Amino acid sequence: MKPFRTVGVIGKRREPHRPTLGKLCSALESLGCEVLVAHNDELPELPAGRRVDAEELAGRAELAIVVGGDGTLLGAGRYLAPAGVPLLGVNQGRLGFLVDIAPDEMAESLAAVIGGRYELEERLILSARLTRDGKTEDSVYTAVNDVVLRNQASIRMIEFESWMGEQFISLHRADGMIVCSPTGSTAYALSGGGPLLHPSLQAMALVPICPHTLSDRPIVIGGDQQVKLIVRGDDTQATVTFDGQISEALEPGDSVLIERSDKPLKLIHPTGSSYFAILRNKLRWGRGQESIAER
Amino acid sequence: MKPFRTVGVIGKRREPHRPTLGKLCSALESLGCEVLVAHNDELPELPAGRRVDAEELAGRAELAIVVGGDGTLLGAGRYLAPAGVPLLGVNQGRLGFLVDIAPDEMAESLAAVIGGRYELEERLILSARLTRDGKTEDSVYTAVNDVVLRNQASIRMIEFESWMGEQFISLHRADGMIVCSPTGSTAYALSGGGPLLHPSLQAMALVPICPHTLSDRPIVIGGDQQVKLIVRGDDTQATVTFDGQISEALEPGDSVLIERSDKPLKLIHPTGSSYFAILRNKLRWGRGQESIAER
Amino acid sequence: MKPFRTVGVIGKRREPHRPTLGKLCSALESLGCEVLVAHNDELPELPAGRRVDAEELAGRAELAIVVGGDGTLLGAGRYLAPAGVPLLGVNQGRLGFLVDIAPDEMAESLAAVIGGRYELEERLILSARLTRDGKTEDSVYTAVNDVVLRNQASIRMIEFESWMGEQFISLHRADGMIVCSPTGSTAYALSGGGPLLHPSLQAMALVPICPHTLSDRPIVIGGDQQVKLIVRGDDTQATVTFDGQISEALEPGDSVLIERSDKPLKLIHPTGSSYFAILRNKLRWGRGQESIAER
Amino acid sequence: MKPFRTVGVIGKRREPHRPTLGKLCSALESLGCEVLVAHNDELPELPAGRRVDAEELAGRAELAIVVGGDGTLLGAGRYLAPAGVPLLGVNQGRLGFLVDIAPDEMAESLAAVIGGRYELEERLILSARLTRDGKTEDSVYTAVNDVVLRNQASIRMIEFESWMGEQFISLHRADGMIVCSPTGSTAYALSGGGPLLHPSLQAMALVPICPHTLSDRPIVIGGDQQVKLIVRGDDTQATVTFDGQISEALEPGDSVLIERSDKPLKLIHPTGSSYFAILRNKLRWGRGQESIAER
Repeated sequence: MKPFRTVGVIGKRREPHRPTLGKLCSALESLGCEVLVAHNDELPELPAGRRVDAEELAGRAELAIVVGGDGTLLGAGRYLAPAGVPLLGVNQGRLGFLVDIAPDEMAESLAAVIGGRYELEERLILSARLTRDGKTEDSVYTAVNDVVLRNQASIRMIEFESWMGEQFISLHRADGMIVCSPTGSTAYALSGGGPLLHPSLQAMALVPICPHTLSDRPIVIGGDQQVKLIVRGDDTQATVTFDGQISEALEPGDSVLIERSDKPLKLIHPTGSSYFAILRNKLRWGRGQESIAER
Repeated sequence: MKPFRTVGVIGKRREPHRPTLGKLCSALESLGCEVLVAHNDELPELPAGRRVDAEELAGRAELAIVVGGDGTLLGAGRYLAPAGVPLLGVNQGRLGFLVDIAPDEMAESLAAVIGGRYELEERLILSARLTRDGKTEDSVYTAVNDVVLRNQASIRMIEFESWMGEQFISLHRADGMIVCSPTGSTAYALSGGGPLLHPSLQAMALVPICPHTLSDRPIVIGGDQQVKLIVRGDDTQATVTFDGQISEALEPGDSVLIERSDKPLKLIHPTGSSYFAILRNKLRWGRGQESIAER
Repeated sequence: MKPFRTVGVIGKRREPHRPTLGKLCSALESLGCEVLVAHNDELPELPAGRRVDAEELAGRAELAIVVGGDGTLLGAGRYLAPAGVPLLGVNQGRLGFLVDIAPDEMAESLAAVIGGRYELEERLILSARLTRDGKTEDSVYTAVNDVVLRNQASIRMIEFESWMGEQFISLHRADGMIVCSPTGSTAYALSGGGPLLHPSLQAMALVPICPHTLSDRPIVIGGDQQVKLIVRGDDTQATVTFDGQISEALEPGDSVLIERSDKPLKLIHPTGSSYFAILRNKLRWGRGQESIAER
Repeated sequence: MKPFRTVGVIGKRREPHRPTLGKLCSALESLGCEVLVAHNDELPELPAGRRVDAEELAGRAELAIVVGGDGTLLGAGRYLAPAGVPLLGVNQGRLGFLVDIAPDEMAESLAAVIGGRYELEERLILSARLTRDGKTEDSVYTAVNDVVLRNQASIRMIEFESWMGEQFISLHRADGMIVCSPTGSTAYALSGGGPLLHPSLQAMALVPICPHTLSDRPIVIGGDQQVKLIVRGDDTQATVTFDGQISEALEPGDSVLIERSDKPLKLIHPTGSSYFAILRNKLRWGRGQESIAER
């Protein structure tokens, strides 16, 4: 695979992440890379790397290394995926679904990846726009995990329609609906009863949250489809949230259009990494001793 | 059973309920009852019945007849159950779980019930108090269906502990928790994956909403137990809601104490009424033609 | 679309199907078709159509019309899909997921379809082979809905591994595993907690049956993947079943290889037919009156 | 509490259990107990304890100590609970739901328990009889965990009715039905989607297995109720199984009557033992690091 020369570094610079970030920058420089560090005014300088803003990083980095948890990688992915920059995740002592390199493997993995020995995985992510008063707004939201329509603080159900392109799916009464990518299928959607979607799948899942009708079950549709959720009811107060991090309020009549983002999320893994090994570890599969009673 | 003389009438007086309310009052008077109509300033007089406020109705009625849907009966039950007044529900053309007399059966059922031919069912309902800053507040909340702890508009999970009396159950990360009575087990709790609890059962169910841990499953505990939910986390914004109708905001450290109400909800049914017949009808059980594909 | 000249007719010829079959044959002949009727020795002659065996029908028919329920169409699909013959389903008074033409629409729909006005839908179906004693057997099994690995009469769990190609997924302890096509996702897999897969999706779902580990959840994988289930344990008695209709016993060490069939199932629909309309009807979606209690 | 003098010892005497059994017998004798060892012809003598048959053990022991897993305790409980003998479970290095004393705590726990310092827990268990050809058979089956009605090797659904006393609940089409005690609620019923029932609850849960109707959900009913399951359908081959260990074949028309056993299961625990601590440990509750993806 192609070696990397210009590398962005992203992470929370508060303790305990800072030492890892410092070591990472030094290691990259000694591997001959130009290092761009995502700018963050409030925090002290790192020992190495040139500080740039998000725009410059997205524009120039050939690779971005994210230090932190899955949440940090989600945030970085939302602006780097549209720019085509691949991401490599280094966790902080706790394996994530996305940040799959342990700090103590970092040095070794880094040399291999920078030198071109890595696997590149492309994952479908979501792109969304809102329609209000009959007009589709200009803003395009990106979601690596999921777009979630939900009722607000009150526990009253909301009423909304779901559509796949021009085809009406159903009128739902529920707490809301999660539309997730394969990456998001191990997150909120899983809590809501959704299936796991293999990351290579070009598909999205629609997972109703606490639906009023018991047969209102998760549906998986093709990645080339467009999903539309339209808020119904007279006085519904709904919210749409992207990756659990960015929210917009919605009124009755508003709709959310969700489709595959033009650009996938590019993830870099060390050679030999395994999605199912991560699942087995995180979901504690196949460990007889950690389970329900004998029968 | 004991015949009834003083009968309260409760219902939404807007169309299409008003004619039923009028007919009901006339029928009761011709059966020799004193009729007390729950007062509602904004609406025109009903043709019969003396208008009283909620307090007088709760204090004097020997029976309250609720015209409307299950939601109307829930609201009436919350103030009439503590006063020991039994309720009879007349639906408005759509069978409910609680309002089980159809308008066209009303005349016949009424004569029987007023004359003492009825079944009296007592159902466990919930009583709750809040503790803030170490002090238990004076207000006592009543819930016929459920007490729901939930996150607010944002979809961030909340963190909270559950206790059964002095026994710690678990630390949860979830959208929230539904604590329901048997009556509430066919409502929100069912959407959230909870079991049905037979209405004669002296029990409550704790049903986590979209829990982060997949093994965080519904638990049924005895009706003589006290449940405590304590909000944890640094910046958690949670809400507690009673029957989906009354809400209070909670801060980290606040807790909700839930136990069986001293007084049960008393429901009056025509003789021969059947809980399972209502379930079969509402949940469409046992209708081969309305179901999933052959196998 | 291409008009049809040689049409096979398949159905249970016992009452009450026989009159429909007779009318169907006559109608086809009057539309100028050559009619081939699937042979069935034990039953009396139909008034029209030449009786042929399954092999001739599969070899010569340009279209097969199935009269009956979804189960009848599954059986026909298993031998006609590999032969490339498209199927049209006429139900017997009860709408199915697959047999979507009502008898009283038959005449009208028939003229349109035979004349070339129809929609052709291609659906992924499954193909399976067994491996015993290290040898892959010659027999190839076709399944329109699902391949199910399950324990036998005893309720003891079985232990088995799942693989996706060369990648180990997990070791399961469960009653079994359902591997379903999108078509099968509305059948047994739905009972077992699996998601709905849109019929255009090139995907399969792996749905564990009553798994011992609560995090052992359904997984959806790409249609170009091969699934392998390997029976483990010392004294496991397992069974593999295709579409719930054909079964084989398995011993520890045996494995089942499942992949997309070379040939899809071709379904013919009247123009304007809608998958979601069928779901809404069968699963009773969006009918406020048929649901759980108010909240 | 009452000290114990005559103590039965039950366990699998094959390795690796034998040393624990030997140590247990010696310890009991040095505590002044008379030790009765459940007889097992095929295995060598234990160093201490008088070998007796099951009947004598059930008749004379004041306490039975079970060494093994939950399955071993289930088997012992089925014949000791009806005789009123309390059980104490010693696990073999792997905590169970029922066998909650670790081998290395055995010496200490033993002295305390034999001396009368323990907690006695009484749990509802099940009793069942079969009715065939209109006659109720004499045999009474005891089940500590569950009575399971299930289809046989084929995956065809079975059809059966459920009744609570004289009240018809529903007609089910499913793989079967699990009727469980609170103790059984952490076993097979949990795999099938049932709720946890607190062990002090006088209740049973009815959990349908892979039901055809999605609204056919688990129901919890009072422990004083009688459940009846009647096999329907023309050619149904069903099986009823008690604790997954004893099975009987059933024909259409046969029924299973299930009710609370006259005698509860008596479990002895060291003082301070906690049911929820066992749940937290076995179900891995509240461990942030072992869970699904960030959101």
